[in-house]
Amino acid sequence: MIRVGIAGATGYTGAELVRILSNHPNVKITILTSRQNKGVPFDRVFPAMSGICDLICEEFSITKICDNSDVVFMALPHKLPMGYAPEILKAGKKVIDLSADFRFNDPAKYEKYYEPHVAKELLKDSVYGLCEIYFEKIKDANLIGNPGCYPTTVLLPLIPLLKSKLIDKNSIIVDSKSGVSGAGRSPSLTSLYCEATESFKAYKIGNHRHTPEMEEILSKEAGENVSITFTPHLVPMSRGMLSTIYATLSDGIKSSHIRDCLSSFYKARPFIRIKPDGMAPDTLHVRGTNYCDIGFKLDERKNRIIIISVIDNLVKGASGQAVQNMNIMFGIDEACSLKTIPFPV
Amino acid sequence: MIRVGIAGATGYTGAELVRILSNHPNVKITILTSRQNKGVPFDRVFPAMSGICDLICEEFSITKICDNSDVVFMALPHKLPMGYAPEILKAGKKVIDLSADFRFNDPAKYEKYYEPHVAKELLKDSVYGLCEIYFEKIKDANLIGNPGCYPTTVLLPLIPLLKSKLIDKNSIIVDSKSGVSGAGRSPSLTSLYCEATESFKAYKIGNHRHTPEMEEILSKEAGENVSITFTPHLVPMSRGMLSTIYATLSDGIKSSHIRDCLSSFYKARPFIRIKPDGMAPDTLHVRGTNYCDIGFKLDERKNRIIIISVIDNLVKGASGQAVQNMNIMFGIDEACSLKTIPFPV
Amino acid sequence: MIRVGIAGATGYTGAELVRILSNHPNVKITILTSRQNKGVPFDRVFPAMSGICDLICEEFSITKICDNSDVVFMALPHKLPMGYAPEILKAGKKVIDLSADFRFNDPAKYEKYYEPHVAKELLKDSVYGLCEIYFEKIKDANLIGNPGCYPTTVLLPLIPLLKSKLIDKNSIIVDSKSGVSGAGRSPSLTSLYCEATESFKAYKIGNHRHTPEMEEILSKEAGENVSITFTPHLVPMSRGMLSTIYATLSDGIKSSHIRDCLSSFYKARPFIRIKPDGMAPDTLHVRGTNYCDIGFKLDERKNRIIIISVIDNLVKGASGQAVQNMNIMFGIDEACSLKTIPFPV
Amino acid sequence: MIRVGIAGATGYTGAELVRILSNHPNVKITILTSRQNKGVPFDRVFPAMSGICDLICEEFSITKICDNSDVVFMALPHKLPMGYAPEILKAGKKVIDLSADFRFNDPAKYEKYYEPHVAKELLKDSVYGLCEIYFEKIKDANLIGNPGCYPTTVLLPLIPLLKSKLIDKNSIIVDSKSGVSGAGRSPSLTSLYCEATESFKAYKIGNHRHTPEMEEILSKEAGENVSITFTPHLVPMSRGMLSTIYATLSDGIKSSHIRDCLSSFYKARPFIRIKPDGMAPDTLHVRGTNYCDIGFKLDERKNRIIIISVIDNLVKGASGQAVQNMNIMFGIDEACSLKTIPFPV
Repeated sequence: MIRVGIAGATGYTGAELVRILSNHPNVKITILTSRQNKGVPFDRVFPAMSGICDLICEEFSITKICDNSDVVFMALPHKLPMGYAPEILKAGKKVIDLSADFRFNDPAKYEKYYEPHVAKELLKDSVYGLCEIYFEKIKDANLIGNPGCYPTTVLLPLIPLLKSKLIDKNSIIVDSKSGVSGAGRSPSLTSLYCEATESFKAYKIGNHRHTPEMEEILSKEAGENVSITFTPHLVPMSRGMLSTIYATLSDGIKSSHIRDCLSSFYKARPFIRIKPDGMAPDTLHVRGTNYCDIGFKLDERKNRIIIISVIDNLVKGASGQAVQNMNIMFGIDEACSLKTIPFPV
Repeated sequence: MIRVGIAGATGYTGAELVRILSNHPNVKITILTSRQNKGVPFDRVFPAMSGICDLICEEFSITKICDNSDVVFMALPHKLPMGYAPEILKAGKKVIDLSADFRFNDPAKYEKYYEPHVAKELLKDSVYGLCEIYFEKIKDANLIGNPGCYPTTVLLPLIPLLKSKLIDKNSIIVDSKSGVSGAGRSPSLTSLYCEATESFKAYKIGNHRHTPEMEEILSKEAGENVSITFTPHLVPMSRGMLSTIYATLSDGIKSSHIRDCLSSFYKARPFIRIKPDGMAPDTLHVRGTNYCDIGFKLDERKNRIIIISVIDNLVKGASGQAVQNMNIMFGIDEACSLKTIPFPV
Repeated sequence: MIRVGIAGATGYTGAELVRILSNHPNVKITILTSRQNKGVPFDRVFPAMSGICDLICEEFSITKICDNSDVVFMALPHKLPMGYAPEILKAGKKVIDLSADFRFNDPAKYEKYYEPHVAKELLKDSVYGLCEIYFEKIKDANLIGNPGCYPTTVLLPLIPLLKSKLIDKNSIIVDSKSGVSGAGRSPSLTSLYCEATESFKAYKIGNHRHTPEMEEILSKEAGENVSITFTPHLVPMSRGMLSTIYATLSDGIKSSHIRDCLSSFYKARPFIRIKPDGMAPDTLHVRGTNYCDIGFKLDERKNRIIIISVIDNLVKGASGQAVQNMNIMFGIDEACSLKTIPFPV
Repeated sequence: MIRVGIAGATGYTGAELVRILSNHPNVKITILTSRQNKGVPFDRVFPAMSGICDLICEEFSITKICDNSDVVFMALPHKLPMGYAPEILKAGKKVIDLSADFRFNDPAKYEKYYEPHVAKELLKDSVYGLCEIYFEKIKDANLIGNPGCYPTTVLLPLIPLLKSKLIDKNSIIVDSKSGVSGAGRSPSLTSLYCEATESFKAYKIGNHRHTPEMEEILSKEAGENVSITFTPHLVPMSRGMLSTIYATLSDGIKSSHIRDCLSSFYKARPFIRIKPDGMAPDTLHVRGTNYCDIGFKLDERKNRIIIISVIDNLVKGASGQAVQNMNIMFGIDEACSLKTIPFPV
C-alpha cells in the first residue's frame, strides 16, 4: 500500500484528493493536515465524509508527514510548498505539489508573477505534471508541479496542433470560463452565493498568472516562442471549466487534418475524448470526472479554428490529475481510482 | 454475471441506473430501451457516457428483454410496468419496478390515486423495496415495488419510532422539499431553468399521491391506522430531498430514547447515518450517494420532535435503492457499486 | 423633501434601502455610512449603482447624521442601534431600526436571546413596524423596530386567524425557508456559492431567535399566551422566503371561513395578496417586491390548515417594509416607491 | 395616452414588455395576445402580476389590435411579424418588431439564414432599432426591427471604434455568453433546470444567425465589408449577456484613444456606462435594467484590445430597447419607464 499524506486537506482540492483516494485500492491515506482545523475530525469539517474517513486533521509537521507517507500531496497556497519540498524530498519521499511553485523551469518567470523562489535548485528536476504530454518523465519524477486548471484546458488541445504546425502560433486567443470552486474555500466577498449567482464576469483581464505558465509550455513544445491573449471569466456554477480557443489556421489546413492530428495524438489516452463533429463539449458532461473533452469547428470564411475544451477544474484541473500523476509515478494504471462515471444530471 | 435490462433508460432514473451499474462488478447491462430514442446510441443521448457505455437504445420488446436479462429494471411512467411485469415474471426473470405500480398491497389504494390496476394478482407477492425495513422479504422476492423518494425519507426515520411507540401516531406532519430532477426529464414549463431558479414553492398541497403510499407502510409497521399531513415543495437545485417531520412525543420520551432507538435499529445498515446532536443533515452531504442521513431535535416546550432526513432523490430515492434491492435479491453485498464517495462541493 | 440617512449602507439591507429610496419622489438620501467602506464611493462598492447614486460612504457620526437627516434608517448589526438611537431621537429625528433592538416591548425577552439592553426606556414607545397590523401606531411613532423577515411571513397570516379564533393557538408549527441573502454580506463559509448551491438544510432548529419575536406579537394579538415550533431552512437561492404553517382548525371551521377572514382583514392593504384556491405562493412571484402572498389549503382528514406565505426577505422582510414604515410615519402613500413590478423570470 | 398592443405577450420578452410598460406614465396597455393562452387572464399565466395587470389574453386579430392600439409590439417568433406588419402599418399604426424579420435591409441576407421574406417592400423603410446609433432615424420610423441581443452587445462598443478606425476590421473575434432566458419560454430539453445548471457550453459555433445581422450593421457603419468570428455560449443563469470581443489595434492606438472615443461617442446617452480602468462589467450589475456597461483592456504584448460589454438580454437585449424605441418614436424621453434601479444582489 502506498502511504499518502495530504497537506492542506480541508481546502477544496485537498478534500477532493481525499474523495478520490478514499476508494483507491493501492492507497492508504495516513495523514491529513490543516492549519485551520487542526484537532478536528475530517468528517466534522466535511460531514459528507462521515463513515468514510475517520482521520483527524493535524498541524503540518515535516517530520511527521515524512514518517507516515511515501508520497505527499501539497494542496497549499503557493509559497508554502517550496519551503517544505526540499526536506521531504531529502527524506526520500515523493512530492506532488498542486500550487504553482514547481510548475516553471525558469525561476525568473515564476518570480515575475509570484514571489522570490526559495528552492530554485529543485526546478531543474521538477516535472510539469501534464500527464498526457509528460508521461515518460513523470514515471521517473520525485517532484511534480501539478498543472494549473486553465493551462490544462489550453495545453491539451494546442500542443498537438502547434507541434504539427497546423495553426499560427501568433494568433492564439484564449477565452476561458471557470466555476466558482476555482476561487477556493476561503470566505471572500466575490465567492458568496448572492454575489456569484446571476453574475458572469471577466477578471484579471490580460494579466492572469496562468498566462506565463501556458506560454512556457507552449513555447517549449512548439520549439519557438509562443505568446497568447488570455481572458478568464467566472461562471455561476460550482465546478467546471471551459476554454474557447481561437487561432488562425496554417495554409491549406482542413477540418480533417485537425481531427486526424488530435485523434492520433490522444489515441491511447483514457481521459481525452475528442468530440464528433457537431457535438459541443459541456462542463456538465465531465463533472466529477478526470476527462478532458475537446471539440472544434472551422470558421472557413476567416480561416480560423475555434477549439473548445472542458474539464472539471477540481479533478483534471487539480486533484484528479494529481492522482493520475501519482499512479504514473508508482507504476500503477494511470486511471486507477479515477473512473468516476459522470452523473446524467 | 447478472444480465441486466433497463426499460426507460433515457429518463433521469434510467440514466442513473446506467451510471450506477456501469461500475458494478457482477453486472453486465445488456439492453437499454427508450421509446423516444430508439436507434440512438445511449452516449448520444447522454454524451457524458461516451467511452463508458456503447449500447444503442432500442424499442421495448418483452421477448427481447426477457431473452437478454436476468433482471429487468423498469424506469417507466406508472401504468406501463403493470402491463409488462406478468409476462416478464412468467419468463422467470426478476423485476424491479421504479414506478408506483407495485408499491401497494391493496389495489384499491393504488386505484384511488392512480388508475385501474391490471395486474392485481401480483400485488400479494410484490415486495415493497425499502431495503432497511424489508431486507428479508426482498431476498426472496421476484417482483419489487421500489419506494417513492418522499416515502423513503419519511419511512426510514418514522418506522423505528412508531414501532417503539415513542411518538403519537396522530400528530405527524411532514414538510418535504425536493430538487427539480424529481420532475423527470420531459420538458415542462415548471422544470425550465428560468422558472425554477429563485423559485421556492409548495405543490400538490395536502393531496400528493405519495401520501397513501406512506400511510399504508406506516400503518402496517405501527400495527394501527396512521394518517399524516404532507406538503411537498420544489427547491431550486438539481438533486436532493429533505423532509422535516414533526410529531408529538409520547409521555416521558427524551432525546436519548430517540437516539437509542434509531441507532440500534440501524446499527448495521451501511446507508443510514444518524447525525450527532447539533449537526443538521444537508442535501449536499448525500449528493450522488445512497445515504439517508437522519438528525433530530426536541422542542421541549411543546413536547414535539423535529426530525430531518435527507437523501439524493435519484439515488436512495430511486435508482440507488433499486440497485440495492437487486444486490439483496441476488445475494450480493447490498452496498456493491453503491459506495460513491460524496463530493466535498 | 425628506432627508434620509442610512447607517450601514453597504450591507444587503442597506443597499436595498438605497435602491428603493433612489426613486422615491419625496426623499433625498443625504448620507450613507459604512464602517468597512468609509471614504469609498457607494458606486464602487456596488458598481451597479454607477450613474444612480454618487454619495461617498462615511464613518458613522451621530452629529453628522442628525444634522443631515429627518429620518435615520439603521441597517446595522443588533446592539449598535440601541446605543445610537437615544441621541438621534433626542435630536428630534425619527429612527427606523432594522435590527432586533427595538422589536420587543419586554426587555427580558430581548436579553434572553440577544444581549443586555442599554436603552430599555425607549422600548415602551418603540413601535413594532408590521405595517398592516400597526398602521395607526406607526403614524405617530418616532422609533420603529422593523420586523424580522421570518416573523413577517408568520404574523401576517396568523394574526387574523388567531384574533378570530379560527385555529388552535397551541398547535402552530412553522416550517420556514430563506434565500441566502438573509445571512448578510459578510463573507462566511456557509454563504459561499459552492457551499450553498445544491444544499438545502435546516439551521438553528427549535431555537432561532425570531421565535420569541413571533411569540410576543402572536400572544399580544391573540390575547393569550401563544408558543410555536419553528424550523428555519436555507434555500439555494439569492432572495425569497416562504413559510409553511400548520395549525389545527377550531371546531367547524371550513375553507370559506378562512378565506373570508383573511380577505376582509386585508381588503384594503396594497401589499397583501390572498391567492385563489389551487394557486400556490411562489418566491419568484414576489421577488424584488414588497408583496406578501398568502395561500392556504385544508387537510380535512386531519382537521388541519396548511398556510403558505411568501415574501422577498430583503424587501417586505426588511428594507421595503422599512420604507413602508417611513411612508406611514410621514403621511405619504404607504406604497410610494414600493411599486416595483415583479420580473416574469 | 399611447395605446399599446402586445402580440405574443406570454413569452419572456412579451411579459417583460408588460412589466416595463405597466409603470409607463404615457402608456395604456390595451390588448395582449397569446396563441397558447387565449382566454386566460394574464395574471394566471404570470401570477406575479396579480393586482398589476388585469387583462385577458386574446387570440391575435389584426383588426382588433389595430382598433385598439397606436403602436403594436410584436414579440412573436420570426416569420409571423412579416405576415402581419403590412396591414398594421396600412392602418396607420406603428410597429416595433422584436423578431429578426425587419432587421435586415438586404432580404437576401435574411433569407439565407431564416426563410423567404414575404414583405420585402417594407425593408427599405424599416429602421434597425439600435437606439444609440439610429436615434434620428427612429424618431421618424413607423416600423422598427428591434436588434438581437447578441448584436446589441457587439455593435454598441464596436461601431465607434470602427468608425474611428481604431481597430483592424478583419481581426474581430466575438465570444459571447447568454443566460438561459434567451432560449425563450417554450419547454425544451436544453432549457430544463437540471440540464442547464452546472452546464456551460457553446452552441451554434461559427454559424449563429446573429452573425449576418452584426456584419450587415458593422459593414454599413465602417463603410467597408466587415466579417467576424462569433461563438455564443450558454451560462447557467436566468438573465444576462456578456460579450468578450477581441481585435487587433490600429497602429499607435493606446488605451486613452479608446477611452476618449467611447466616452465622447456615448457622452449624452443615458444607458451606456463606460467602466473605469480596472473595473470589469458584470451581468449582475445590469440585471433588470436597460444599461449596456462597457469595459476594455489592452493586451499590449499582442497589440490587441479586449472589450467586454454586458446587458440584460431581456431588457436592453429585447423589451427594454423596444420600449426605448417607442419612447423615441413618440417624442418622449427615451429613458421613460426604463429607470429600474438594479438590485444590489
